[in-house]
Amino acid sequence: MRGKPLAAIVSAGMSRFGVLEGRYSREIFSEAAREAFEGCPNLDPKSDIQGVFVGQMAGESFEHQGHWGPVLADWAGLLPAPATRFETACASSASAMRSAIFSLRSGMYDVVLAGGVEKMTNRTTEEVTEFLGFGADHPFETFQGLTFPGLYALMANAHIHRYGTTEEQMAMVAVKSHRYGALNPKAHFQREITLEKALSSRVVAWPLKLYDCCPISDGAACLVLTRPELARRYTDVPVYIVGSGHASDSIALHEREELTSLKAARLAAAEAYEMSGVEPGDIDVAEVHDCFTIAELIAYEDLDFCARGEGGLMIEEGRTEMAGEIPVNISGGLKSKGHPVGATGAAQTYEIFRQLRGEAGESQVEDAEVGLTHSVGGSGATAVINIYGRG
Amino acid sequence: MRGKPLAAIVSAGMSRFGVLEGRYSREIFSEAAREAFEGCPNLDPKSDIQGVFVGQMAGESFEHQGHWGPVLADWAGLLPAPATRFETACASSASAMRSAIFSLRSGMYDVVLAGGVEKMTNRTTEEVTEFLGFGADHPFETFQGLTFPGLYALMANAHIHRYGTTEEQMAMVAVKSHRYGALNPKAHFQREITLEKALSSRVVAWPLKLYDCCPISDGAACLVLTRPELARRYTDVPVYIVGSGHASDSIALHEREELTSLKAARLAAAEAYEMSGVEPGDIDVAEVHDCFTIAELIAYEDLDFCARGEGGLMIEEGRTEMAGEIPVNISGGLKSKGHPVGATGAAQTYEIFRQLRGEAGESQVEDAEVGLTHSVGGSGATAVINIYGRG
Repeated sequence: MRGKPLAAIVSAGMSRFGVLEGRYSREIFSEAAREAFEGCPNLDPKSDIQGVFVGQMAGESFEHQGHWGPVLADWAGLLPAPATRFETACASSASAMRSAIFSLRSGMYDVVLAGGVEKMTNRTTEEVTEFLGFGADHPFETFQGLTFPGLYALMANAHIHRYGTTEEQMAMVAVKSHRYGALNPKAHFQREITLEKALSSRVVAWPLKLYDCCPISDGAACLVLTRPELARRYTDVPVYIVGSGHASDSIALHEREELTSLKAARLAAAEAYEMSGVEPGDIDVAEVHDCFTIAELIAYEDLDFCARGEGGLMIEEGRTEMAGEIPVNISGGLKSKGHPVGATGAAQTYEIFRQLRGEAGESQVEDAEVGLTHSVGGSGATAVINIYGRG
Repeated sequence: MRGKPLAAIVSAGMSRFGVLEGRYSREIFSEAAREAFEGCPNLDPKSDIQGVFVGQMAGESFEHQGHWGPVLADWAGLLPAPATRFETACASSASAMRSAIFSLRSGMYDVVLAGGVEKMTNRTTEEVTEFLGFGADHPFETFQGLTFPGLYALMANAHIHRYGTTEEQMAMVAVKSHRYGALNPKAHFQREITLEKALSSRVVAWPLKLYDCCPISDGAACLVLTRPELARRYTDVPVYIVGSGHASDSIALHEREELTSLKAARLAAAEAYEMSGVEPGDIDVAEVHDCFTIAELIAYEDLDFCARGEGGLMIEEGRTEMAGEIPVNISGGLKSKGHPVGATGAAQTYEIFRQLRGEAGESQVEDAEVGLTHSVGGSGATAVINIYGRG
């Protein structure tokens, strides 16, 4: 680890992901907050937590509700703590975490709550597709009929044409995600699937089939963060954020330099690696943003887990399995754990927190000491990457 | 000034406010960014600006567009700078500024752009009323039929009953705002009104009449911020942020301790005064969140410009006029300058920046050395208050 860590995570909470019938975002978020607070007996949430940073993507459309900072702070019992809502599409709670880190390093706050939530399953698939489309370019993409499966299908096709990536390799990502999702009691889907089942599922946007796409889920996750020097007040096993990167790219695909890599993710990864002194080969466990299976393969390449164009080979060779060289998405990933968009960044960190503390139960990766989260907003206009180390 | 300033503002830009027919948020924001960049010849925006912090309240509904960080960074020519969107209802760009301050104090960024934008006039009044309602509580308020004029009317009635505040005193706020808006070439409304006209306008939600309510506007504003020690690289006349406060309250009125004061604003003001060492009597010029005339009277009291219940007297005695003891909303305020909700916090700071640099032209307050901005989200669930000093 290079220099002083940016922040310490001292507790974490996550709701069940899935179809949480009849519950508002505020109720789901309070479930995650409760777990985080109960897991940290030395914390007095109301008096200790000085700032609340929450990601929520499209609650105005899903629930007719905005102004999420105070709503969620209230339901977590934290008023009058200053509370702010962040939106960077599917990376919203990763962005909330980044400003939480800024606030701690600024010296203006000592202890903060960062997290996110989304309630999605109360809407029709058509509505959800429309609302998720806010993360793409309206005049140049969604207004023209492009949807998120369509955008990622363009990337998948480019990857196939450029590198020879196959439909089977993409389906293997889904099979892996479901294998580990089956071990995660909070995952949306907790059952394994076969390669045949994935490959024979109906086409959503060629070459992406149903099992290449993450589901529509409800859920929340959150973290209690503090300045590194205060971490031991709250836990004997803090997890440190030792590097953080964030970059942006054009929201519309047609303005990008290429379709087979996310430039923002490459830049954010370079920043996080440089800041932490960690190299790709040092990563023991990673959670990456597999909103579609092709996105996981591109993530392997953008994170330098393998060379460009070798993402397909990497999954085929089992190198990202639990016993492989870099276990990826052992939580089940967005594909099987679920993807309540505003919660996902924080939920990725929740998994790494448990892995590095050795609390991941059946899903535990052996000797996990260095972790990474890779959060993507939209089709890659936002990327936030964090690297974590054990206390 | 107590201790080291939090940050320095070295340039600022603001679009025309009003009905900007046929222009998207991204285009309006780029107009504000251009002014900020042209006003700072030593700044190379693309290479110097390391982070972009933008407020946008409800663009998903107004323009079918979210993920505003990268969109606005792109149109300001700042990619691949990390860009984040903030939403705290009508205080969104004030919240963006607050995280921008954190980022500078964290030492992770040296120069950042903070601002906001909203495009509203492309929708019907009914739609705008619905979308603004996202800032209130859906299950307990807007779903029951309450609108923002209705919420502030409840506060106005409480103030009338408790303190004897009059309809005339509220109307005087509108008359003052229009008097100064007439001097502001960027204001939505640039004409004076009479007390009779304000009092005889149609009732929107009793006791609030048309002229007690701010208009629906399009507009953008932004600021270039840097660490205090770097300010002189960019300008000879920096304006320093010397105190900042932020607090939250219940989003629903029925959960509040009282209706005649915004607790979040009182807490945020206390924090900003304490941090800066500035006292209310030291303020030379202030911009307060007058979404409705009653809100300005309550702001006088919450900021300790006068005692509780004396807001009405304060406007009646002319103490917040340009030549009065604390000139307030010399820009025209939300009432006359306009209120493109995502832009307002940054636009308030734009005005204070110009006032403290002596660049406010016809609107210049004499010897303005200490300024204050008071930004409110929704009906008061968010308050962000900043105090500024001349370099």
